[in-house]
Amino acid sequence: MRALLFDGQLHLRTDYPDPVPMPGESIVKVSLAGICGTDLEITRGYMEYRGVPGHEFVGRVVQSENATLTNRRVVGEINAACGKCNPCTDGMGRHCATRTVLGILGRDGAFAEYLRLPDANLIPLPDAIADESAVFIEPSAAAFEIFDQVHLRHTDRIAVLGDGRLGAIVALALRGEQFAPVVAGRHPVKLKRLAALGLQTQSADELTPGYDVVIDCTGRSEGLALAIAIVRPRGTIILKSTAAAGVVMNLAPVVINEVSIVGSRCGRFRPAIDALAAHKCDPRTLIDGEFSLADGAAAFAAAADKSKFKILIRP
Amino acid sequence: MRALLFDGQLHLRTDYPDPVPMPGESIVKVSLAGICGTDLEITRGYMEYRGVPGHEFVGRVVQSENATLTNRRVVGEINAACGKCNPCTDGMGRHCATRTVLGILGRDGAFAEYLRLPDANLIPLPDAIADESAVFIEPSAAAFEIFDQVHLRHTDRIAVLGDGRLGAIVALALRGEQFAPVVAGRHPVKLKRLAALGLQTQSADELTPGYDVVIDCTGRSEGLALAIAIVRPRGTIILKSTAAAGVVMNLAPVVINEVSIVGSRCGRFRPAIDALAAHKCDPRTLIDGEFSLADGAAAFAAAADKSKFKILIRP
Repeated sequence: MRALLFDGQLHLRTDYPDPVPMPGESIVKVSLAGICGTDLEITRGYMEYRGVPGHEFVGRVVQSENATLTNRRVVGEINAACGKCNPCTDGMGRHCATRTVLGILGRDGAFAEYLRLPDANLIPLPDAIADESAVFIEPSAAAFEIFDQVHLRHTDRIAVLGDGRLGAIVALALRGEQFAPVVAGRHPVKLKRLAALGLQTQSADELTPGYDVVIDCTGRSEGLALAIAIVRPRGTIILKSTAAAGVVMNLAPVVINEVSIVGSRCGRFRPAIDALAAHKCDPRTLIDGEFSLADGAAAFAAAADKSKFKILIRP
Repeated sequence: MRALLFDGQLHLRTDYPDPVPMPGESIVKVSLAGICGTDLEITRGYMEYRGVPGHEFVGRVVQSENATLTNRRVVGEINAACGKCNPCTDGMGRHCATRTVLGILGRDGAFAEYLRLPDANLIPLPDAIADESAVFIEPSAAAFEIFDQVHLRHTDRIAVLGDGRLGAIVALALRGEQFAPVVAGRHPVKLKRLAALGLQTQSADELTPGYDVVIDCTGRSEGLALAIAIVRPRGTIILKSTAAAGVVMNLAPVVINEVSIVGSRCGRFRPAIDALAAHKCDPRTLIDGEFSLADGAAAFAAAADKSKFKILIRP
């Protein structure tokens, strides 16, 4: 099959082996896939991943032993867990120590014609969600994870740091649930687009302290320092940035101001699917381009362009 | 009066001006004061504090407009708040932005014959608590603050990092509330003493991952890295170390494992007073020496000795 392979460099391979399902797995033909910051980080060495990247996708099940999945349009939870360890039996399969992660850890991903995932990971989609919205379910689930971890109040002053893909998706998800976040960034072009979507925006340089909740979606280690500077005493920072680089931190203010920092990664798909099906938010406004697998390099270049939001690959 | 003054160096002053009460403040004659890690940090430049250090004390009210305080034996909440700002009116005076803090920020402290504090900060003591226990109320309150911030379960695996003063007090407070923490440190002499008090102990080098809750009382920035390494996915780190030095941190594991980091500083005195009055724990076993103000330098040297727990000053 055709696939984008990262082996230190990103190539199109036209002769890549078709995925072979393990017991309990199905094969999905990828309809549409999204490039996210983690994919860009992977091409810079993150997780030392080698293989086919891509973990945001929508597709159709073309091979399955599970009749309820066959031929269904699906999205897929990206963490494939063992199902037996303590985190798994505690309902935390996303934290299984021996998990593989689609396109990130030990499992080829979605920038290919086909992928394999456990049946338990695949979720059939309602017709109300177009492919172009469905491809945002995985990052939207990461946004909805915040609600599973932290009790937000509708009176909270909330700042979303970062005017990139994830910041935009998080802000749209919050707005869809009747919160009123301020999105702060350093890219006037994107802030203007987000303002046109009705979001409150601000230059990151002009933020002043006093936020109850600060959500760091900058993708940069430095985001946390800014979050610490603007969160109120006893406030909450939700940390979404997985930038691997070490950074010099002075954490004394976290202790003195009794701030809580909550690391936040992937989330359950269901709340995101429900919100998109109910049209509580429409992430399609963030789509800035669509490329074929053959144009994978150009797609990654476009995704790295700081003026762009979401770039899609249609295999 | 006699006082220990820190002006870049620590001196005994025999002619230091007596404290003059502001409206609503009382004068306390200090009976006994404790040296804590923050005091040692102050002599190394922390908070750029200049003045009389000391914030752990028990004393007797010798001058007050408040008849219910006059002549009473008291301890005192160390944060003197404005009472009017948002944190103050929200019951968070300990986070008032214009607060002074006894012996730490803009207010002379307890290593002196007398100190002044607002009447609202002073709490009369029950007879059941001896001075030698009462002097531990402030650091015990910092331990009990954990219960106000985080819901601990009695089935939680809890590690206390640091076999120093604060680690020992936190572990004793937890044990008093029927939790079973493991205290981990690098000082075999102190670990042996804590084991003799019935606490579970372990060398910090031998810790293995899987703790539900890790409480960093190392007083060192590096403590957080160890906490991150041993906390389970979705676990909680309680950060008590205010070491000011920056340290290079890679926070990606906090995000990937969805760890919560909760900064924790001072606490309400009442739970600590109740626990000591009920003899749920006896911190007096941690006393390793008592010095006069005249021997202040020797007292600080003893407190800096890594084989010692608590050093007291009896003015």
